[in-house]
Parts: sequence; structure tokens; C-alpha cells
Amino acid sequence: MNIVIIGLGTGGFAAHLYAKRACRDAKVIIVDRKEFNLFHPCGLPFILDKTLDAGKLEHMLNLKGTEVLQSHECLKIIPDANEVLIQQVGTDKRRRIPYDRLIIATGSTASIPPIDGIRPLLGKSIFTLHCTDDAKKIIAKEKKHILIVGAGPIGLESAAGLRKTCKVTVVEALSNVFPRSLDTDMAKMIEEYLVTKGVMFHFGKLLSKILSESDSLVGVKIGEEEIRCDTILLSCGARVDLKMFSDAGLLIGDHGLKVNSRMQTNHKNIYAVGDIVETKIIGSEQKLPSRLATLAYAQGKAAGINSVGGDAFYHETNMAFASMIGDLEVASVGMTSKVADDSGYSVIAVKVRSTDIPEWAICDEKKHDITLKIIIDKTTLQVLGCQSVGIGAAAKVNVVAAAIASGLTADKLADVELAYCPSISNLPDVLSVACETAVRRARLS
Amino acid sequence: MNIVIIGLGTGGFAAHLYAKRACRDAKVIIVDRKEFNLFHPCGLPFILDKTLDAGKLEHMLNLKGTEVLQSHECLKIIPDANEVLIQQVGTDKRRRIPYDRLIIATGSTASIPPIDGIRPLLGKSIFTLHCTDDAKKIIAKEKKHILIVGAGPIGLESAAGLRKTCKVTVVEALSNVFPRSLDTDMAKMIEEYLVTKGVMFHFGKLLSKILSESDSLVGVKIGEEEIRCDTILLSCGARVDLKMFSDAGLLIGDHGLKVNSRMQTNHKNIYAVGDIVETKIIGSEQKLPSRLATLAYAQGKAAGINSVGGDAFYHETNMAFASMIGDLEVASVGMTSKVADDSGYSVIAVKVRSTDIPEWAICDEKKHDITLKIIIDKTTLQVLGCQSVGIGAAAKVNVVAAAIASGLTADKLADVELAYCPSISNLPDVLSVACETAVRRARLS
Repeated sequence: MNIVIIGLGTGGFAAHLYAKRACRDAKVIIVDRKEFNLFHPCGLPFILDKTLDAGKLEHMLNLKGTEVLQSHECLKIIPDANEVLIQQVGTDKRRRIPYDRLIIATGSTASIPPIDGIRPLLGKSIFTLHCTDDAKKIIAKEKKHILIVGAGPIGLESAAGLRKTCKVTVVEALSNVFPRSLDTDMAKMIEEYLVTKGVMFHFGKLLSKILSESDSLVGVKIGEEEIRCDTILLSCGARVDLKMFSDAGLLIGDHGLKVNSRMQTNHKNIYAVGDIVETKIIGSEQKLPSRLATLAYAQGKAAGINSVGGDAFYHETNMAFASMIGDLEVASVGMTSKVADDSGYSVIAVKVRSTDIPEWAICDEKKHDITLKIIIDKTTLQVLGCQSVGIGAAAKVNVVAAAIASGLTADKLADVELAYCPSISNLPDVLSVACETAVRRARLS
Repeated sequence: MNIVIIGLGTGGFAAHLYAKRACRDAKVIIVDRKEFNLFHPCGLPFILDKTLDAGKLEHMLNLKGTEVLQSHECLKIIPDANEVLIQQVGTDKRRRIPYDRLIIATGSTASIPPIDGIRPLLGKSIFTLHCTDDAKKIIAKEKKHILIVGAGPIGLESAAGLRKTCKVTVVEALSNVFPRSLDTDMAKMIEEYLVTKGVMFHFGKLLSKILSESDSLVGVKIGEEEIRCDTILLSCGARVDLKMFSDAGLLIGDHGLKVNSRMQTNHKNIYAVGDIVETKIIGSEQKLPSRLATLAYAQGKAAGINSVGGDAFYHETNMAFASMIGDLEVASVGMTSKVADDSGYSVIAVKVRSTDIPEWAICDEKKHDITLKIIIDKTTLQVLGCQSVGIGAAAKVNVVAAAIASGLTADKLADVELAYCPSISNLPDVLSVACETAVRRARLS
């Protein structure tokens, strides 16, 4: 069995790992554009304030028995011949390689808004943050005021780091930070935290014009307003190039390549995983582009196993998400209130604030607050989503992830005994309290 | 409706809270021996090294509309008359108070081994750790070498604190630390950690003799061996006095008062919760005395709701447990391998060690390891238990707690997407890896 994997990101890596694990003798060829094996884009923002060392994000793997065609890209997929046409980057060396099964895991690149004046300044005073080279350039650039476009994880984690050395303004087209993961009230906590650190925000606005003087960036227009700035970081989403796939006759949905729950495209020998595929949020009717490493890993796992004749499924994503904004942890899982509402649930949402350990156990006056919001359905008590801000947020959200996967209703989740020790956790746990309150409210309403 | 609650510990407090919440007009009388309202025994070991301030463990509550008979104890339960006989502590003032529903939450006291020579030295050079007064006495006692009897949470948390100021030896009758919560291999990690901190251990041995010279403690015999020491901390379990209950005709099991899943004793108007009742471990055939605050809280909740005519159930405990030994976090849930084995499961146990965040994201060389052991049934892939050691252990165990409550099998649990950010968590998560490995092993064997 010849497996060809295009792209060695999280999805391609997982596909390889699980294909080889399920079938040690599978012959795998990986085609990848990079000059090294694996890269961890989630670490990029933490390079900016030197929390992380750039060198640690890129490394070589020991993929024994697997052929890795580094610095190669795929130009064309030829399903009828079960072949791909590849080319060595920077050369015109092309060749066709055959496959029994093809796994596409080409990922995404940073999105660049279609505004005049951006392209000439790219890499000089306007940056994306997609590789370590980008990060190095941003660090090297002398900057007094950076404008960050996009309040997703890359934008905000970068803002939290960069605000230590320069003025930071964040522009977000939607109405709050982390619009895909948080309700407005929870998002407000992150925004307020960053505001206390000196970060400025503009919501509901798009970058409309680049202002430059003698080829130097001097500012932007957002809406009708002018903001002076000397540097811009574009973190307004990812872009996927689907042309090669549609040329090959693969079906494309509104949010990416269409795959079934075995991660198969409409061509049964071709699988696709990660950023390029369209995924459904668990329990909802909402589809979205897949943009999380966890998701790429899980999809790669399923595709890898299936490519060697196994039987694995990836149905829906729970959207499990975490981010570290300065020293504020934020996490979420499942649907936001809006997605739940749009999906026809009658939403009960309850927000509870507590200390991470009991009030009485806090000796050194160093109080860690945690806020948790649980979203349930009024009629069935089904747990739809959870959002949390504060140290331990991801840990709470992970318990809810298990509850969502198993259909554990909020009344049962409230009753789950959680491990308690006064120097580690609280009794009752903020998660139990939130669930219990939500259930009570559902029954009263 | 007159509710009488005997005992204002975690169980009694929860019973009151939920009774009043379910029925605001319920008339509640609480009879409690203490001079203050609530006390947090789980905090006691952390007083010994002054991590916690003793004053914080005792406090008064604002229980509006509830009569709290402080410094009172119950002498007798008279089920036929629906009355209890109570007495003011230190006086001979007795009276009978009537109840419609009685909730017994009298808790436990520290167990004292039946060995000659202990009692005269109690409070002088031999101590238990059951109240803040005990902790204060231990701190005040001049000590060079303390012998701690019992390697449960109180014994080990105390050992971790006391070893900073004196020599510490721990004696445990069973074969490893935390024998109720951990398998031997996991327990070994805690033991080895404490050994590196200078703590000495003797397993499988009982205190057999107190050695004293002119009324001063000079050492002990454990088995045939003599150990010189000047101080002893007895942390070898809790003792409950069930005589009053059997006198009242309440049924007693091997491990405490017998209750049904509504927390009712054989007298339908009498409920019992917490340390005094016998509880079953979820999924097992094993009953045990209830000794965890989480459990007392959950049982108190059920009894409180039911006492005012509600309908709440407490079936089994998941044994969720956490402890902090120095800077080592330990947690567990469900059955140990032995309990699972004794309950007839064909046990597959897999232990995985990982860093809490990705290796590449660790910049300052400060590595946090986490070890996690998952216990599943070979045939059904049912998750039976989980044990973990390292920062974040309780968080992992809580995800498994939700899986156990919902019957989420290990293959499904392995597939749950967990929130990932390189400065917070790892991908794949150690829990997913352990579950996946266990499932693979189950299928291969």
C-alpha cells in the first residue's frame, strides 16, 4: 500500500503516525514545502516577547522508513491516474508520483486583506505571523505603535506580548475578541484585561486604507477613522487555496473541502484533513473551516488509520480551544450561545465566578479568580458549551468536553464528584455550581 | 417541616444549604459540638509548615433563619418519638428536640491505635491532627524527629511540610502510600519524591510499642524494630462512634451506617451522610467508609433535598481524590487496579509519562512532568479508574470522572478533543495517549 501525504503539519504528521501504527509495512511518502519536518505555528506569538525561543518551533523528525520529500510542493492531483504532480521548490524539477491512497493536509496561509498598499510593505512594516521568519522580522522591526488586525488567538497572544515594548492597537471586524469561541460577556473580560495593560481596541471595523509617506507606513484608515502607526500585524484569519482540489474534481463546500466521516473526499482514494476541510460543530447545524491543531490531529488520525484499510471516524468538532493572554488563561468548548441559538436550542446560559481554591485557603492574598459560563438546553438539559477565563480554564473546559462527547446532561454533570484538595481546587467546584444553577433556572423557566 | 441536622461539617453544611434552597420555609435546627460554625479539616496539614494560617480554617456562617445550637451534642436518637436528646457541652443541660426529618452528619474523629502508653502522652508528644488546636500543639512542640503513623493524605501532606524543620519517618501498615487511591507503581513516585526530601518510610508495619523514659517519649517499636523519635503524629485513619445509632435501631454495615440511595437509613425519617455512612465505589462491588469532603458534600446535598420532600439520589462514589505533597500534585478517581480486579474486571492498565506542555514550548528548562495511569476493562473498554502524579493531575482525573459518570468508553475518551495551547497544555494530551494505548493493548490481547 502506497500512501502519499501532502503537507507535514499537525494533520499530515498525525496521518503518518497513525497510518504507520495501524500498518507497519505501509509505504508512506510525504511531500512538504518546508526545509525541515515539523513546525508549531501555535507557538509563534510567544516568540514575540521571547517567552519562547524561535529555534524550538522548527525541527526534524526521525521518520524511519518513510520518504520525506522536503522542499517539494504538489502542483496537481490526477485522480484518474492515482498520481500527483510534484515540483521541487525553487526549481523546475517536476515528477509524477503514484499513490494508492492520497492524504491532503496542505494547511493554510495567513489571510491578507485585499487593500491597496499592503503588498509593497509586506515584510517591511506590514507582517503576517505564519512562520518563524515572520516572527523574527517583527522582532527586528523598530516599532513604536503596532496595529494588529484580528482579535483571534494569534492577534491577542501577540498583543499581550508586544504591548510590553510598544503601543498596541487591535482592530476586529466582529463585535468582540475571540468571536468564534466566546460570547460577548466572556470576551469582555479578555478585552478589559488587555485594556488595563495599555492595549486599545476597535470593534466592528475593517481596515479600509493604508496610509504611507515616501514608501513608509504612517497609519491606516479603519472605517472613517485614521490611526497613526508604524507597523501592522495581519492576523485576520487563514487563507486556503482550493483551486488545485477543485481542478481535480474534489467537492468544495462553503468552508472548505467536503469530506465524509472517514475523512474521504468524493474520490474514495483521496482523504483530506486539517485547515482545508469543512467541519461541523458537534450538536449544531453550523459548518466552519477547521482551524485548530487539535482538530487537524484528530482528523489526521482518522485519515491515517483509514488510508491503510482501518476503520476510524471523525464526525464533528467540539471546538475545544485554549489561549494564554498574558497571565490570563481562556478556554472554551462546544457552541457559543449564538451558535446554540441559531441551531434551534432554547439556550440557558449561566456564568459563575469563584476562586480557584477556597477563599479560606488563600493565604498570601494572591487570589486567582476563575469565571465559568455553561450553556445548556432548557428542555433536555443537554450541555451545549462552556467558556472559562482564569487559571485552570482549560481544565474545566476539558471536563465539559467529555460531558459533550458522552451526552452527560447538566444535572448529571453537576453531580460528578471532582477531585478536591484545598491547595489545588475548590469545593464545590465552579463547574458544578454553574451546572446546578443552569439546571435550576431551566426547571424554573 | 422541622429538619434537625446533627453535625455542621461538610455533610451537614451541604444538607442545610440544599434543604433551604429546595424549601425556603423549612425550619432547620443544627446541633453542633464546635464553638464556631464551619471548619475545614482538609486544610490542617498545610498549617504545619505555615502555608496556611490556622485562623482561616474556622469560621462563622451567616445562616439566616436557621437555629444553630453551637457547643451542643446529641446523646440519643429516639426514632419512635421523632426526637433527639441533646446536651450542652461541658454542662448537664439536656433537652429533647423534635424533628420531622433528622439528618445525621456527625463525622469522625482521629483513630488512635490501641497501644499502651499512647494516651498519657496524647497532646504532649503524641498528637492527632483533627482540629486547629492539634496543629498548634504540633507546631509548638520542640521536635527533632517526628514519626508519622499512616501514609494517607493527612500523614503525607504533614510529612511534606514537617520535613523542612525536622527529621520525618512515616510508618504505614499497608504496602504503599495512599493505599486507597493509588496502585503501588504510582504510589512509588510519591514515596521516592519524599525520600529525596529526606523523609524515611517503613511499609507493612504497625506501631507495636511506645518507648518512654521518665514520662517522655523516646521512641517506638514498629514490628521488631526500634526507632528513636521525640514526637508522633497519628494519622492512621478516622474513627466513628456508631453506638448511638445502633442503640436507636439504625442498621450498621461493615463500614458504617447503611443508607439507601436517597441517603435514608432504615428509619425513613432519618438520613445519614458523610464519614459515618457506608458507600459503594462506582462500578465495583466494594463498599468502604466515606472519608472524602466531596463525598460528604454530595451526600449532604441529596439528604438535604430529600428531607424537604425533594427527590435526589446518591448512588456510588467515584472516589475522586487529590492531594498536594510538597510541590507534587497527585490525584485519582474510580477503582485502583486491585479493586477493579477484585470486582471481576479483566484489567488493562497503561501508564504514560509526558510533559505538561510540549517539549518544544519549554523554554526556561523548568520541566513539569505528568504521569497518568488509566485503568480500563479489556472486554468492554469501560473506563474504571485513573491515577495521575504531577502538576495538572487533578485536572486530568476530573475529565475521567466525567467519563466514568457517563460510561464514556476509553476509545471514545481517547478521541475527545481537549483544549490546546502550547503554554497551557500538550497535543496529544497524556490522557488521550494513555487511553489510546490501553485500547490498543485491550484489542491485541
